[in-house]
This record gives sequence, C-alpha cells and structure tokens, in this order.
Amino acid sequence: MLFTPGPTEMTDVIRQIGAQPLPYFRSPDYCSHVQDLTAKLRVLFGTRQTPLTVTASGTGGMEMALVNLFSPGEEVIYINGGTFGAKWGQMARDLGLTAVEFAVPHGHDIDVQALLTQIGPQTRGLLLSGHETSTGQRFDIKSICQALAGRDCLSVIDGVSAIGCDPFEMDAWQADCAIACSQKGLACMPGLVFVTFSERALHRLRQTRHHRSYFDARVYLDNIGRGMLPFTPAMHAGFQVAAMLERILATGLSAHLGAIEQRAQGFRKTMKAAGFAAFAQSPSNALSSLRLPAGVQATALAGRMRQNHDAILPLNPTKAEDFIRVSHMGAQTSEQLAQLAQWLSIEVKAMQVCSS
Amino acid sequence: MLFTPGPTEMTDVIRQIGAQPLPYFRSPDYCSHVQDLTAKLRVLFGTRQTPLTVTASGTGGMEMALVNLFSPGEEVIYINGGTFGAKWGQMARDLGLTAVEFAVPHGHDIDVQALLTQIGPQTRGLLLSGHETSTGQRFDIKSICQALAGRDCLSVIDGVSAIGCDPFEMDAWQADCAIACSQKGLACMPGLVFVTFSERALHRLRQTRHHRSYFDARVYLDNIGRGMLPFTPAMHAGFQVAAMLERILATGLSAHLGAIEQRAQGFRKTMKAAGFAAFAQSPSNALSSLRLPAGVQATALAGRMRQNHDAILPLNPTKAEDFIRVSHMGAQTSEQLAQLAQWLSIEVKAMQVCSS
Repeated sequence: MLFTPGPTEMTDVIRQIGAQPLPYFRSPDYCSHVQDLTAKLRVLFGTRQTPLTVTASGTGGMEMALVNLFSPGEEVIYINGGTFGAKWGQMARDLGLTAVEFAVPHGHDIDVQALLTQIGPQTRGLLLSGHETSTGQRFDIKSICQALAGRDCLSVIDGVSAIGCDPFEMDAWQADCAIACSQKGLACMPGLVFVTFSERALHRLRQTRHHRSYFDARVYLDNIGRGMLPFTPAMHAGFQVAAMLERILATGLSAHLGAIEQRAQGFRKTMKAAGFAAFAQSPSNALSSLRLPAGVQATALAGRMRQNHDAILPLNPTKAEDFIRVSHMGAQTSEQLAQLAQWLSIEVKAMQVCSS
Repeated sequence: MLFTPGPTEMTDVIRQIGAQPLPYFRSPDYCSHVQDLTAKLRVLFGTRQTPLTVTASGTGGMEMALVNLFSPGEEVIYINGGTFGAKWGQMARDLGLTAVEFAVPHGHDIDVQALLTQIGPQTRGLLLSGHETSTGQRFDIKSICQALAGRDCLSVIDGVSAIGCDPFEMDAWQADCAIACSQKGLACMPGLVFVTFSERALHRLRQTRHHRSYFDARVYLDNIGRGMLPFTPAMHAGFQVAAMLERILATGLSAHLGAIEQRAQGFRKTMKAAGFAAFAQSPSNALSSLRLPAGVQATALAGRMRQNHDAILPLNPTKAEDFIRVSHMGAQTSEQLAQLAQWLSIEVKAMQVCSS
C-alpha cells in the first residue's frame, strides 16, 4: 500500500473511471463535463474565479504561474524551507526571473513579520507553498496572503499537495494564484494540474512580457467559458477528478478535510505514545513527519517497510535520514494507519537491536 | 464510435490498464518500466537516441522542441499547409523566435526544391509535420530531412498524429527532432508526449539560450538513463503505451503500419467508387479526407453521422466545409469502415435531396 504523497491510493470507483471509453474532446457532452469540473474546482479552491485545467504535472502548473505573472528580470521572493520551496527558486531562475531566497529552517514556521520586511517595492511576487512536502510543515499562508493584498506583490501558492488536504480559501485569504493537481489531495491519476488566478493576477497576466505558449493562461481563459480546453487533455484524470469532487462536495469540503485531519492526528498520537516526536512545528493534514531514534536511518527503514510489509513510504528529497514521512492523502483508513504504526515500531526496534 | 484523429478508440485490454493501482514512481520497478518503455519507443522512432517521456499534450512536445533547440530571435521556417503547420508558426512566434512561413496549398505536396531555396544561412530550423492532420496530406519529410542533414538547419518533425501510423525512421532519414504522443497512432489515453533529439540536436540544446524549466530536455536527459522521470508522470498512459508497443513490436512495426495502410486504402477505394474524391494529393495512413458533393456541408454531415449512427467524425479546424475527414487510428476494423462508408453515402444522398 502507498503511503507516499502522490501518487496515492485510489478507490476502486475512481480507478475504474480510468478504463472508460473516451468521447471526442470537441463534443458538446465533453464541453459540459469541463464546465461541470470547473464549477466543482471553484469550490475546492474557494474562489469565484475560474480554475484552468492543464495537462502537466504539478511542476507544469508552477511554470504556468511564473510565465504568466512575471516578466524576465523581475524580482520574486521564495521561501526555502525544504526541497519544494527551493524548487520555486530554481524554476524562477531558470525562467529568467530574479529569485531572492527567504530561508526557513526545515520543519519550522515562517516568521511572517521578518518575511514582510523583506518585501520591497521591487518585489513583484512571493512564491509560497501551502505546506513544504519535504518536511510536512504547514505554513500560515492565510496571514501572508492577507498582508500582501494591500501591496503590489502577488502571492503565488504551490498547493499541489496541500489543496484537498489542508483548508484553503483563495478568495477569503486574498491569494493571487494557486495550483492544485489530480494525484495528491484528490487521489486520482496523475496527469492534470489546476491553476487559478485572482482578479488582479488576471490583470497582471495580460501585461506580462514572458514568452509563453503551452502554458499561456490567456488561451485557456479565452476558451474555458464554453468548456473548451485548448489542447487534448488527460481526459480520464478529468473524469476522475469530477467524480471525486462530486463525492467530496456531497458531504461538504470541510467534512472531507476534517476526516483527513482526524486520521493524521490519530496516527501522530499513536506514534507520539510510541516515542516518535513530530518533525514539523505545524504539521499539514497531508502528511506526518516523525523523528527517528538515533541510529535509525530513514532510507533503511523505508526499505524494511517495503520488503517486510509492502508499505511504501516516500524517500526524503532533502536526503535527511533523521525523520520519516507518512502521507495521509488518498484512500486510507485509520485501521491501516494503526497497522502501519505497529509495523514502524517493530521495524525501528529491530533496527535498534541490530545497531546496538 | 470515434473516427477522430485523437482521442481514438482503445482496445479493451489497453483501456483496463487505465484502472490499475499505481506503484510509487520512485520505486525500482517503476524505473524498470520507464527503461523498458524508452527501449520500445526507440523502435517506434527508428532511433538509437533516447526518446523522452513528458506529461503534456502533443502541443507541449512541440514547445519542448522549440525552447530547447532555438534561442529567442533566431529564425525558423514553418510549412503552412493547414492548421497544424500554421500552429508551428504561431508557437514559434509566441516563444520569441522569428518564424518565416512557407505556404503550401491545403491538401498539396510540398515543393521540396522551392522550399530548399528558401533556407539560408540564418535559418536555424525547419518546422515540419509528418502529415498535416487538418487536410490528411502526408509530406515527404524523408527527402527534406536528408537534404537538411548537410546544412546547419535542424529538421523538427511534428509526428504527433503521424508516428505510429505512417512510416518514420528518425536516424535513417536524419531527422533532428521528432514528437509522438500516447493518444493518436498508439491509441492509448491522452497524457504523454514523447520527444527525441538527434545527436546534433543534443549538441544544440546544451547551447540554446531559451528560458526553460518544465520542458528543459537537459533535466530529462540527465535522469532517463536510470529510468527516472523528473516530475510525476501520467503513469497510466505510460503503462498503456508500453503494453501497446509490446503488442505492435511482437508482430513488427511495419506489419502494424501496413495494416493501417490497408484499412485506409480499402476505405478510400470504397468511397471513390461511391463518388467521393480524395482531398489530399498524398494521403496519410492516419486519416482519409474526402471531397463532398456540392451543397453538402461537412459540419452538417458530421452532425447527422453523430445523431443517426453514433459515428463521431472530427470537425475541420480549417473551417473548410467541402471535405470531411475520417481517422484510421486506433481500434478500428475494415468492417466498421465499410459500415461507415455506407452511412456516409446514405446521409450525403439524404442531404442532397433536402437541398435540391
């Protein structure tokens, strides 16, 4: 079983949609589906704006934000609190922007006041993550976005593995751009990324001088009203996401997020009682990061969990060996997590015996 | 039933792969799959080079070619013989290149000698299509690529709807970049595009000064050897393509192409006998384009075919109303085409009665 932060375990019902015959993507029925999907994504993002559906991984959605909102040479600040924050900076540089780092110790909260003092009149945007997936740390993006709303600096949220797991309200928080995807919080197949721009971001993107074609938001915006996507989309992923959101919205988005939170908190409580401290100061619902006892290496532990229990834990992209991550995304029960907790304790004890 | 040039009808066996549970995409088994897929794609492209697997539509693959091979301001020539040739020009301009049109009447062959006289020392690349999908015209890219091999001008082939249907031999023809995708000739789900660079294109792409991130071929090239794809891929599409190529290569690629050709030629013969002349001078195996009798409009005919027979024909992106296109890609039998031919004759006759 997968305990990885994407891909995630999918329910049987969602998986079976992946085997459906396809309609023509220029047919009226398909356009209706795109309109329905877009309406449901609005609820997911908490916005009256129009989420755009793009065939790419989450990284493609991040590029879509950058090339539409910033012109070459413009300055952006990115939060480096782990691999995915650092990735924002690398991508911004690769795309010709001036990227200024704001460093945050791994697993720690952002010092919002210190961050705000770094934002000058030349800062065109702030590149954030809903949580830093490499550490499990959730950031207080609500406070940051609201603080930026009065300045000419756009807040751009990598919500690829946060939206659908942690609360997010794009309009209420006054975020300017947010990115979600099919295969993380929504537990569908990989293939689609969803990008939403605020009203002032929509204004900005019509003026940006960045070369853009596949990720040109204007082409998507000009066609989405009639349910047309400009290029052949990963159609099965779209049908799955629509079905998943149908189910989530039937019981309510907050109930869905609450269930993930409860699962995550229950697991952390069990692990804490077993002696595993939390690595992140403010953990995301999406995943738990747990400090390992001295002498127990994360990569070796993940290997034993895979070999002995067929439980797949992610490798740490930061290469850290002193904590391990467990995803709570996707089709996963509290019973499965209780079993996982037991296996983790057994394997860690066995490793301690071996190393002592 | 779909007679559209992507998406296409998929076999039951391929469709069911879309419902499989996923492995972790950083697992050794998945890396082995990527290596196996890459080896099979080499045969499809006819190359010793390394096809790169990218999550995007075919258009994304075209952008990957442009941003890796050409720097802003450099000149490329594109063949405008229909919508998809024109698209090359628009994309090149949107990405900051100087795009020079070489116009070809719709449905006609390229005058290769006239084209070659247009290529000067400042021409950094020639943007071609294996066939022009909007007209069904197949181009003699073999002659063009071979003529360019001695000049410092790269040949870039949009093979999105040609590779897997028409013969293509990247190395033997000395093509410099070629693009194929999951959902056309290979009749799998949309979501993946495959891009291959020749040796001199690989040299060029290390020197290009275009901003690039998601489509940066260097990141893919640096990881593909160990079976790693840089971002979460559309995994189900990859499993389907590997299974489809397994089947195709078991009987041989030329037998697969021959079967499509035979199906297409049989259909055209039937239609010719029924009074429908071919629109394209040199038709692609991938689709037939058929001239309609005066007074019969393509859009109205497609509407009747959908309504009365559940046979889905593509709309003409050129907005032409005097011919109709029928795709031969995907799971399709000669019997189904014979039935389609009968329906087309019936509907056209009914429309002629109505309009007379």
